[in-house]
Amino acid sequence: MAITGQENPDLSRKIIITMASDHGVTEEGVSAYPKEVTAQMVYNFLKGGAGINVLANHVGAKVVVVDMGVAEELKYHPDLVVKKIAKGTHNFAKGPAMTREQAICSLEAGVSVVEEILNSTGVDIIGTGEMGIGNTTASSAITAAITGKPVLDVTGRGTGIDDDAFNRKVNVIKKALDINKPDPNDAIDVLAKVGGFEIGGLAGVILACSANKIPVVVDGFISGAAALIAVKIKPEVSDYLFAAHSSVEIGHKAILDNIGHEPILNLKMRLGEGTGAALGISIIEAGVKILNYMASFDSAGVSKKL
Amino acid sequence: MAITGQENPDLSRKIIITMASDHGVTEEGVSAYPKEVTAQMVYNFLKGGAGINVLANHVGAKVVVVDMGVAEELKYHPDLVVKKIAKGTHNFAKGPAMTREQAICSLEAGVSVVEEILNSTGVDIIGTGEMGIGNTTASSAITAAITGKPVLDVTGRGTGIDDDAFNRKVNVIKKALDINKPDPNDAIDVLAKVGGFEIGGLAGVILACSANKIPVVVDGFISGAAALIAVKIKPEVSDYLFAAHSSVEIGHKAILDNIGHEPILNLKMRLGEGTGAALGISIIEAGVKILNYMASFDSAGVSKKL
Repeated sequence: MAITGQENPDLSRKIIITMASDHGVTEEGVSAYPKEVTAQMVYNFLKGGAGINVLANHVGAKVVVVDMGVAEELKYHPDLVVKKIAKGTHNFAKGPAMTREQAICSLEAGVSVVEEILNSTGVDIIGTGEMGIGNTTASSAITAAITGKPVLDVTGRGTGIDDDAFNRKVNVIKKALDINKPDPNDAIDVLAKVGGFEIGGLAGVILACSANKIPVVVDGFISGAAALIAVKIKPEVSDYLFAAHSSVEIGHKAILDNIGHEPILNLKMRLGEGTGAALGISIIEAGVKILNYMASFDSAGVSKKL
Repeated sequence: MAITGQENPDLSRKIIITMASDHGVTEEGVSAYPKEVTAQMVYNFLKGGAGINVLANHVGAKVVVVDMGVAEELKYHPDLVVKKIAKGTHNFAKGPAMTREQAICSLEAGVSVVEEILNSTGVDIIGTGEMGIGNTTASSAITAAITGKPVLDVTGRGTGIDDDAFNRKVNVIKKALDINKPDPNDAIDVLAKVGGFEIGGLAGVILACSANKIPVVVDGFISGAAALIAVKIKPEVSDYLFAAHSSVEIGHKAILDNIGHEPILNLKMRLGEGTGAALGISIIEAGVKILNYMASFDSAGVSKKL
C-alpha cells in the first residue's frame, strides 16, 4: 500500500488509542450525563468492560487508554497512560477552553503517545477513540468554526439530550464562537478556544501517524473533529487516514466532506470510544489480507478472460 | 435475539456455504470468462486460495463448498460436498434451464446441506456464497421475473463484460423471459425456467435456516436472487436473513427493496463467493458480543442520566 510503502503490508499489530478528558462547558447543561461519567468510563475501559474493549477484542486490537485531562485525579493503573494537561478545560461559553500553550501541549502529548508505542511494541495500524462528557459540544463548535457551516447544521444530540438541552447546546456553541472568535485558518486557535484536551491529543496522534507512515483509522464525530484540526495543520495528513464509519451525529458529514473522505462503514453507530474504528480496522485488514493471500487467477490455474 | 430465541446467543460456529454450478446460457456469449472457470474456482476454494477462503479465515468462519451442478466431473476431494443435479443447466435462451423436478431437487439439496451440518458440527450462523460463470445472467432474469422491473434496470456487467456482451446479455434475458414465460407468483417456476442449480441450492439453504432458527447472512446479487426465491416460497424466511452488503450489480438493489432488507455493508464489492457474507457475519458477531459482554452502566458503576 502507498501508506506504508510495503508491497504486502502486515496489519497484525493493531492499536486503538482512546483518549479521555473533561469539558468545562458541561456546566451549561449541554449533556445528558454528569461529567463524573468520564472518569467512571476510564475505569470501565481499564477493567475491559466497555464497548471498545469488546470490539477491540473482536478484531484483535489492543486498547491504549490515555488521560488527557479528566477532571478527577484518577487512581494509578499500570495500563493508564497519563498525559493530563489540566483537570478539564474551562467553560468555553465564558472564555477560551484552554491557552494556546495547552493546545500545543495536547498535540505534543498525542504525538508522544504514538512515539512511545513505536518505541515499545511497535504498531501497524492505529485507530482513534475518545471519552469525554461534553465533547460533542466541543466537536460541533470546532466543526462550525473550521467548515463555516451554521451551528444548527453541525450539532446533534450527543448521548441523547432532550429538546431543551439541545436548544441550550446550540445557543452555547453560538455564544462560544461569538465570544472567542476562533480563527478558522488557525487550527490551534480553534482547538484552544472551543476544543478539548482529548481532541487535541487525537489530532496529535493523527499527525504522528502521518509522520511515521502509519495508517490511522478515525472513529466518529469527535475523532473527526480531531482529524479536521490535524488536516488543517498539515493537509498531507489526509493521505494517511481512513474514516471508519459515518456517525449518527449530524456534524460528522460536514467533517468528512471537508477533509474529502468517505466512511468505510455506515452502521448508524454513536458510541464513540473507538468502536467504529475497531470495525473499520477489521475491514481494512480484510482488504490487505486479500492482497496478501488470495491466489491470482494465474497462480490458481484459472482460465483467462475471453 | 429473536431469531435464535436465546438471550445471549453465541455465534462462534460460523459457516459459509459456497455453492457452484454451471449455466447453459454461457453459450450465448454473456460472460467475460469461459465456463471452465467454475470448476477451476471450485478447486481453488478447496485449496484455500480464493477470496472467500481469505475472508472466511479473517472472520473465523469455515467454508463448505458444494457442487450443485458443475459441468465438469470434479475430482474427489474429502471436503467437497457433491449434490450435483446435472452437469450445468440448459441454455434458457432456448427453453427452460431445468425441469420443475430439478428445481425442487436443488431446493431440497440446499436443505440437506444445512441438515448435514446440523447433524455433524452444528452451526450458529450461516453465510451464503456462490460461483458459476453465467450466474449474474440467471440472477438478472430471476429478478426481472419476480420484481417485474425492466431487464435493463436489473442487469449489470458481471465479472466485467464489454458493451457488446452487455447488450447481448440484456437481449438474451429478454428473450429468455419471452420464450419461457416464468410465472412471477410461482418461484419454483421462475427457478426452473431461468434459474440455476446453485441458486436453487442457496434458496434451499435459506429456507432450512429459517426452519431451524439459524440466522442466515445473504451475500450479494446471486445469493440475493436465491433469497428472492426463498422469500417468495415462504415470506416468513425474511425474518431470519440479513443482507450482508450492497453489490455493485445494479439488480441487487431491486432485490433488497423487494424483500425489504437494508444491506449491513456498502463496500462496492462484486466478487461473490460469500465474501460479503463473511464480512457481514463479523459485524453481526460484533453486535452480539456487545450484547453479551459489554458492562451495563449499572454493573460498571456509571452515573445515571441527569
